Amino acid sequence: MIRYFFITLFTFSLSMTFTVAQEAITGFVTENAKKQLTLEKAFEAKLSADNLDQWMQLMSAEPHWVGTEYGEKNAKWIEKQFKSWGYETKIETYHVLFPYPKIRVLEMTGPTEYKAKLTAVPVEGDEFTAQGDALLPSYNAFSTDGDVEAELVFVNYGIPKDYEELEKLGIDVKGKIVIAKYQGSWRGIKPKLAAEKGAIGCIIYSDPQDDGYVRGDVYPKGAFKNKTGVQRGSVMDMPTYPGDVLTPGYAATEDAQRLDRKDAPTITKIPVLPISYEDAQPLLAALEGPVAPNSWKGGLPITYHVGPGPAKVHLKLEFDWQLKPAHNVIAIMKGTDYPDQWIMRGNHHDAWVHGANDPVSGMVALMEEARAIGELAKKGQKPKRTLVYAAWDAEEPGLIGSTEWVEDHKAELQQKLVAYINTDGNGRGFLGAGGSHSLQKMVGEVANAVADPQRSVSIRERRMALDQVRGGNDKFELYALGSGSDYTPFIQHAGIAALNLGFGGENSGGEYHTIYDTYPHYKRFKDPGFAYGVALANTAGRITLRLANADVLPFEFEQWHSTVSGYLDEIMKNTESMRSDVEKHNSMVDKNLFELAADPTKPFKKPEKKDAVPYLDFSALQNIMAELNSSISEFSKTDISKLSVQKRNDLNKKLMMAEHKLTSETGLPRRSWYKHQIYAPGFYTGYGVKTLPGVREAIEQKNWQEAQEQISKVAGTLGEFKKHLDKINTMR
Amino acid sequence: MIRYFFITLFTFSLSMTFTVAQEAITGFVTENAKKQLTLEKAFEAKLSADNLDQWMQLMSAEPHWVGTEYGEKNAKWIEKQFKSWGYETKIETYHVLFPYPKIRVLEMTGPTEYKAKLTAVPVEGDEFTAQGDALLPSYNAFSTDGDVEAELVFVNYGIPKDYEELEKLGIDVKGKIVIAKYQGSWRGIKPKLAAEKGAIGCIIYSDPQDDGYVRGDVYPKGAFKNKTGVQRGSVMDMPTYPGDVLTPGYAATEDAQRLDRKDAPTITKIPVLPISYEDAQPLLAALEGPVAPNSWKGGLPITYHVGPGPAKVHLKLEFDWQLKPAHNVIAIMKGTDYPDQWIMRGNHHDAWVHGANDPVSGMVALMEEARAIGELAKKGQKPKRTLVYAAWDAEEPGLIGSTEWVEDHKAELQQKLVAYINTDGNGRGFLGAGGSHSLQKMVGEVANAVADPQRSVSIRERRMALDQVRGGNDKFELYALGSGSDYTPFIQHAGIAALNLGFGGENSGGEYHTIYDTYPHYKRFKDPGFAYGVALANTAGRITLRLANADVLPFEFEQWHSTVSGYLDEIMKNTESMRSDVEKHNSMVDKNLFELAADPTKPFKKPEKKDAVPYLDFSALQNIMAELNSSISEFSKTDISKLSVQKRNDLNKKLMMAEHKLTSETGLPRRSWYKHQIYAPGFYTGYGVKTLPGVREAIEQKNWQEAQEQISKVAGTLGEFKKHLDKINTMR
Repeated sequence: MIRYFFITLFTFSLSMTFTVAQEAITGFVTENAKKQLTLEKAFEAKLSADNLDQWMQLMSAEPHWVGTEYGEKNAKWIEKQFKSWGYETKIETYHVLFPYPKIRVLEMTGPTEYKAKLTAVPVEGDEFTAQGDALLPSYNAFSTDGDVEAELVFVNYGIPKDYEELEKLGIDVKGKIVIAKYQGSWRGIKPKLAAEKGAIGCIIYSDPQDDGYVRGDVYPKGAFKNKTGVQRGSVMDMPTYPGDVLTPGYAATEDAQRLDRKDAPTITKIPVLPISYEDAQPLLAALEGPVAPNSWKGGLPITYHVGPGPAKVHLKLEFDWQLKPAHNVIAIMKGTDYPDQWIMRGNHHDAWVHGANDPVSGMVALMEEARAIGELAKKGQKPKRTLVYAAWDAEEPGLIGSTEWVEDHKAELQQKLVAYINTDGNGRGFLGAGGSHSLQKMVGEVANAVADPQRSVSIRERRMALDQVRGGNDKFELYALGSGSDYTPFIQHAGIAALNLGFGGENSGGEYHTIYDTYPHYKRFKDPGFAYGVALANTAGRITLRLANADVLPFEFEQWHSTVSGYLDEIMKNTESMRSDVEKHNSMVDKNLFELAADPTKPFKKPEKKDAVPYLDFSALQNIMAELNSSISEFSKTDISKLSVQKRNDLNKKLMMAEHKLTSETGLPRRSWYKHQIYAPGFYTGYGVKTLPGVREAIEQKNWQEAQEQISKVAGTLGEFKKHLDKINTMR
Repeated sequence: MIRYFFITLFTFSLSMTFTVAQEAITGFVTENAKKQLTLEKAFEAKLSADNLDQWMQLMSAEPHWVGTEYGEKNAKWIEKQFKSWGYETKIETYHVLFPYPKIRVLEMTGPTEYKAKLTAVPVEGDEFTAQGDALLPSYNAFSTDGDVEAELVFVNYGIPKDYEELEKLGIDVKGKIVIAKYQGSWRGIKPKLAAEKGAIGCIIYSDPQDDGYVRGDVYPKGAFKNKTGVQRGSVMDMPTYPGDVLTPGYAATEDAQRLDRKDAPTITKIPVLPISYEDAQPLLAALEGPVAPNSWKGGLPITYHVGPGPAKVHLKLEFDWQLKPAHNVIAIMKGTDYPDQWIMRGNHHDAWVHGANDPVSGMVALMEEARAIGELAKKGQKPKRTLVYAAWDAEEPGLIGSTEWVEDHKAELQQKLVAYINTDGNGRGFLGAGGSHSLQKMVGEVANAVADPQRSVSIRERRMALDQVRGGNDKFELYALGSGSDYTPFIQHAGIAALNLGFGGENSGGEYHTIYDTYPHYKRFKDPGFAYGVALANTAGRITLRLANADVLPFEFEQWHSTVSGYLDEIMKNTESMRSDVEKHNSMVDKNLFELAADPTKPFKKPEKKDAVPYLDFSALQNIMAELNSSISEFSKTDISKLSVQKRNDLNKKLMMAEHKLTSETGLPRRSWYKHQIYAPGFYTGYGVKTLPGVREAIEQKNWQEAQEQISKVAGTLGEFKKHLDKINTMR
């Protein structure tokens, strides 16, 4: 595709001509805005793609999951780099439970026999895939031990609506082993829900339609998952609490008091194992019973049946449960003016195998950013606020390193930490930015100042072009944070403003959590020239420096308000459509339409009438949102250029506490670890966010009493937030 | 699945308890309505599933495409039966061009070699599939002869929007051979469009996702298409004109003047061959170039690429072009009161191979209906109007038998024929009824009087249950007729009111036009007990008898008006959204959003701005529809019980001419054979209907001047229709 290669070069050269509009930037008085933009230019000029490339080769040379020698080696090497760049460094180690697979058996015992291979093959042109026993066997961390044999049932993605479909077919998974496709939810939801439904085992496989040859050519010819690739990953019940399963809510220090493993609530109730589509095909092909609904069918050359059976499978799993040291690298650069106001950056360093993309591609961008800032500091351009860089360990098994550290330092963080900015694996394409919507305006301004490496526009313009081509609007918006990386303990547990940044959309692959996430794969299919690694360092670095040097911290609440109002409207609309859907359903049941429309020769369970959806009283939330609106427009009138330095400092002390006012100490129902009242991972989605989670999930679960209680609770929390803003308003 | 089998039996027994509400029926004065319903009950009581079963075994015992000995044998046997039932019979034979495949070669000549097998395998348990050379080789009738070799391009379904997608990818099929999936349009559109785009050959295959193992277990284990099955079928350019390619618009009698074959406009411009998915897989797997868009991907275990090449294929086709006799069986029962008012029923008898489902399942239902009516007649219960039953030959290659017959008798038919009622292959499940909307009310009343064989409700209630469960409304509606069976020459060429009837939705299979459409397949997967065959005879027979005996022909125009008004609204709305889509597209082109959103490393052709959509003047159509509304409500006031017999007779003479007023002698642009101004098959869909076709297609093709001309033309036709209704109104 030589001709397209030229296009690339061409646009690269064009992008050099990109210039930033020297506009006013939120939080800076005019003269300091100029200084800041000059500083950011100097920072940008120091970023080098070669460093990212070389560091990736070093860090991803060997597997480095938590507790490995190479993982510890990486941690020490990272610390050494930070020290050499002028940071005070330390390694804070926690002792966390981590299971290593001793026995993995999956076999079909009837009607025909098949023994699952459970091994991905080495491929030509990628020596790293040939490291044999050094590679971590494929498994799901925090599956319980187990030895079960039963008939198999295919449950599509194994999410709630799939079990509704099974019920229509009159199929029960009680006492069965389920096989679910990866995707459709975070993987940990699949065994959790299967166990709730009475299944005794769970198999998860990557279907070629979602993650294999249907998407594109497979590795090594192309980027996608070949028939032997297996996605590893944690199935710990993170929506209840992440981090060490034995020390919920407190740090897993050497001498910490620990739960008994049998009492640890976040270990799965049933054994679960991930497999390749090569291993899944004979199992699925041996199923009979109803043909799977069309939307369930995958890309294997078979007729997908649901079962149960006649395929019978035996699943045996045994793990070596040990405490392993998780080494968090912490690097600090003291602020010149406000040493007790911290801006924190983090990315994890542990991987499932080599992790060239996940997490090293993000880690090396963070390091290059820190190096450039260090150089500026050496030349006297030190940040006004304290910068804290973190390289987390044990993220993959369940955000463990970051969670234990936050639990350990919670009080101090709630006093000093202004914001936490997270990165993780990075790729080529478009900026994806999520987080606290009080930071949306500032992030949008930074995105406007960073050139896209391939097109002669800013990364903000390019992102918005994509959104519009896809039918979206022309606003720059942060997505709401669910879970899936190390921002979770900061925002959702400690109530600290957080961001998550990364590029993607033009990289492709099926390497995620497999032995194929290697340097050669990354260079071919992700971000070959590390141009977007540099763009990430540039974006995250500018955000960090703006927060570090702002005269008044760049929190803005009008965009926050319109976003949260949008969440509330959405929930009220959803409740309305739930009501009309139930009414329609019930009248169709009354008229017996479902039975009349059903094929008498096929399985059919007559649907039952559903309870009517009551009218909820949303007024408490509607009123507080209205009151907040006036407090916020009042705050927006603030002219920081007219404020004395003393007033600015007072203001900053209050502003950095605002996000915490959005939390409730009692947390969410049945998962008090999650304190934030605006953002949480879904109890039945895992990574997928639920906004205004207490209210939204109660409604989705049709728990009307709890829904009404949560409306008051969230309204109360927002009331505290309003009081805080009103206090700020009196201080200007 | 024993427990569901019981359910079936149960509902069968229930259905016995079904009783018809003795309501008034359109077109009958009260006393005659009672008589008619008694007659219909007597008719229904005579219908026997055993006859259908035995006759199917006989007629589908051997392949019987046009010109075969067995086809002629079937025709003579059908005639004999009708004679024995008291009908005057004749066989009217036409001499029509029919190509038989002499040479069929498809091979991949590079980068690897593969020779297509082009043969479906015999399967266990179905002796008919083992008849070897007696089976018609798989091919597309009316493909031109050809010998071409070129690079291959995958074009999805090969319909207009697929070529738009190819253009975005910068891929041209000029000088290439295209491979297209079956479905998405009538097959003949694929080579027609490919030739328009400059391709030199066309391959059509059945993808397992649409027609194979993805849908369900394959034959003989299940009903669906196994890897060797191939769908035969005509690719004659039927949207231009159906019937004998050498005698457009007139009958192919022995001595008719014929076009030179090289001048026949409805033979394809490029060679085209259908193949199995077993033969398609190596060809598709050898393609490179861009990965196919997601919506293009099928069910084969490969990565679908678009090409062009490197796969290079050689396609060689040679046919034996001969005139073959097409034997139409015509059976007549003279009406007692109105011998010159005919009600006609028809179904074709020719098949591609054995045709147990297509057409025999419909043919045997028609015959059982005729037998029962014959018995009643022998007992003195003769129809008031003349019944004409037809068993058409040569439907499969292009509606040839029926088209030549209609062209031959056009003048007489336009004088005498009240309505034509068509059937074709039939299955288990739900009534599907299409046709002239002036008959919708009557058909709905009949559907209300026929019991569903499996559920204790009418076939109308069951159909409407399905519609509502699928989110539709609770009205009984006829679909508009496109093409695909023998009603086309009647309604669209001769302008005679027509209906098309059949059951389906609970039968399944991939046997269509393959060697697997056999009696064993039908008995296992279609309508095992022929209960729906009987229901079809019952439905079509009651409709026939109502039309035959009505005091005033049951044409009703209020439902017609709301339906046609709906078509007009739809067209106006489509024009509006075309306009806003173009405006949105152009502003996105202006902002360069498409380029900014595109991956610079992938093929990308910058979209061009489109011409603005002008505002059309629809007022002529809106006004005439408004005027029609008052004429129609006036007509609806008619109280037939107050009309003298003389007046009724005068009224009937006019009413039977009404449909013809919806035609224009000059027909549609570029296809004058199609006279009807409300219904036509789409020029680029083939079978799929286009309502108000002149206007709709001009707009879809962005031919604005023609659109405006067609608006006047259709308004003029509707004006004639209104005059006719007004004359009728003066006669009551």
